[in-house]
Amino acid sequence: MAAKEPEIIRDKDQMRRWSRAMRAQGKTIGLVPTMGYLHEGHVSLIREARTHADVLAVSIYVNPGQFAPSEDLSTYPSDFHGDIRKLTQIPGGVDVVFNPHNLYDYGGSTDASARASNGAVKSGGGETVSCLEDKGVGHETWVRVERLEKGMCGRSRPVFFRGVATVVSKLFNIVEPDVAVFGKKDYQQWRIIQRMVRDLDFSVRVIGSEIVREHDGLAMSSRNVRLSPEEREKALSISKSLSEARSSAEKGQVNCKVLRDLVIQAISEAGGRVDYAEIVDQESLESVEEIRRPVVFCVAAWFGKVRLIDNMEINI
Amino acid sequence: MAAKEPEIIRDKDQMRRWSRAMRAQGKTIGLVPTMGYLHEGHVSLIREARTHADVLAVSIYVNPGQFAPSEDLSTYPSDFHGDIRKLTQIPGGVDVVFNPHNLYDYGGSTDASARASNGAVKSGGGETVSCLEDKGVGHETWVRVERLEKGMCGRSRPVFFRGVATVVSKLFNIVEPDVAVFGKKDYQQWRIIQRMVRDLDFSVRVIGSEIVREHDGLAMSSRNVRLSPEEREKALSISKSLSEARSSAEKGQVNCKVLRDLVIQAISEAGGRVDYAEIVDQESLESVEEIRRPVVFCVAAWFGKVRLIDNMEINI
Repeated sequence: MAAKEPEIIRDKDQMRRWSRAMRAQGKTIGLVPTMGYLHEGHVSLIREARTHADVLAVSIYVNPGQFAPSEDLSTYPSDFHGDIRKLTQIPGGVDVVFNPHNLYDYGGSTDASARASNGAVKSGGGETVSCLEDKGVGHETWVRVERLEKGMCGRSRPVFFRGVATVVSKLFNIVEPDVAVFGKKDYQQWRIIQRMVRDLDFSVRVIGSEIVREHDGLAMSSRNVRLSPEEREKALSISKSLSEARSSAEKGQVNCKVLRDLVIQAISEAGGRVDYAEIVDQESLESVEEIRRPVVFCVAAWFGKVRLIDNMEINI
Repeated sequence: MAAKEPEIIRDKDQMRRWSRAMRAQGKTIGLVPTMGYLHEGHVSLIREARTHADVLAVSIYVNPGQFAPSEDLSTYPSDFHGDIRKLTQIPGGVDVVFNPHNLYDYGGSTDASARASNGAVKSGGGETVSCLEDKGVGHETWVRVERLEKGMCGRSRPVFFRGVATVVSKLFNIVEPDVAVFGKKDYQQWRIIQRMVRDLDFSVRVIGSEIVREHDGLAMSSRNVRLSPEEREKALSISKSLSEARSSAEKGQVNCKVLRDLVIQAISEAGGRVDYAEIVDQESLESVEEIRRPVVFCVAAWFGKVRLIDNMEINI
């Protein structure tokens, strides 16, 4: 099959017109939301989406609403032309790349009331401020998935999940997909989007796609490129220890403290700094003390200036 | 024109199928969300919607998510058959009444994790609990319009606007309307929905429809039926004093404290209890001290056990 170059759409209205034209032709629409700097993990999401939809849109947008001012928005890697090349090589291809300049530009001037007179940021919600509000943008509507957003990544990244749920709501309303595919590497994100879709009655089927790993087991991530060779080697401790914990559980070790200590110790000894290592129910994401039902072991850890996440489901 | 009886749809999926069938025929869809017990105010919203859309859906649903357990959910008036009779008499009629039994029934069992073991309610968000969470339902996603939801009605009814924004999001996702009409009687609600639609990129045009009043000036409300004849007479102090304040402003009285005192005194002397009387910017809903641009004077006051709201725009 000949390589197919995707159409690039940057305008919200044009994006929606494209989708509606496709739907009017009886075609089902798949969406894979990404922040770009695509790797084999993204490619696997796109292949998965291809099997569920007639036409396929991939969004490439680094969402300032999900980064705190202290986080790595400014150093988040990007390579738009490389991304398009990769997408063109995927069998079956991608029909549209939605690459908006700014999803929060509502055509007005900067909202002065978003900033207090001393230049500090007033947050309407009180507690949390993202890079978006930091710019004094007038956007003030946030989608909160209140229980699932609390734990794990939500604890160390308080603006993250409301930013994700909000931008995904926007993308769903613009692209109007029938199916959207998310990676299970971002396990908590995937469950939050599923719950949001249920609770807000979005007409979108959400599919979770399995983690793709490098040959040595490291979970693929756009952030891996920021690891030094030494850090990358040390970071293998995450997937290795998770694997060991899973094997141990499958052999009968159901005590979560023992399993967590195993992982925390392995990562710490390799020189990583564990943010969290939690064994939680696969749906409620509530902590489990003994494994009596399907769980997922989720880890976040820093190696140098890079925060990595990984997880493994344990289905016993 | 012959009277047209609306089709009654109770199922979400059936509702969406109807809308999509209409859209596939090239028809535009209007939605008027209501909580039933329809009066002339609702009828005017429906007439307005008729002018903007080819086919019309009216939703009738008393949303537990916008009532606090201490509020009047259990006594909120209803008369479904009377509502259908009224809708049937409207020239041009209404095509569909969407009357779901429960918009928060997701087909699972009651979510035990929503209740703490002592039977008290755990709120994921921490601060606010509605009649919905009080029942231990698993719903946990809320749409928050963080600045606009704070003042006026939001102060005395902390769960109200997140409940409204959330249920309207659900209705938009189910009915997929092109146009939705809201009453300017609920001025803050109207502005919140407008802002939500902008911020979340809903493809819905939101139209605000003017307040409809009884012959003596009382703003129409489903709650008026719960006023005793004496309370109803006293409640006229709201619209009368608002009118006087507007006249006074139009004659040059731009000092908001003076205008507010006029209204507060009139309502108090009539035996009402003022919840708030605020003069605010029409878009940002921020309090104004001197009228230098278009404002709206918003009032909420209790007469007996009934809380009434009203407002008047002052365009000088």
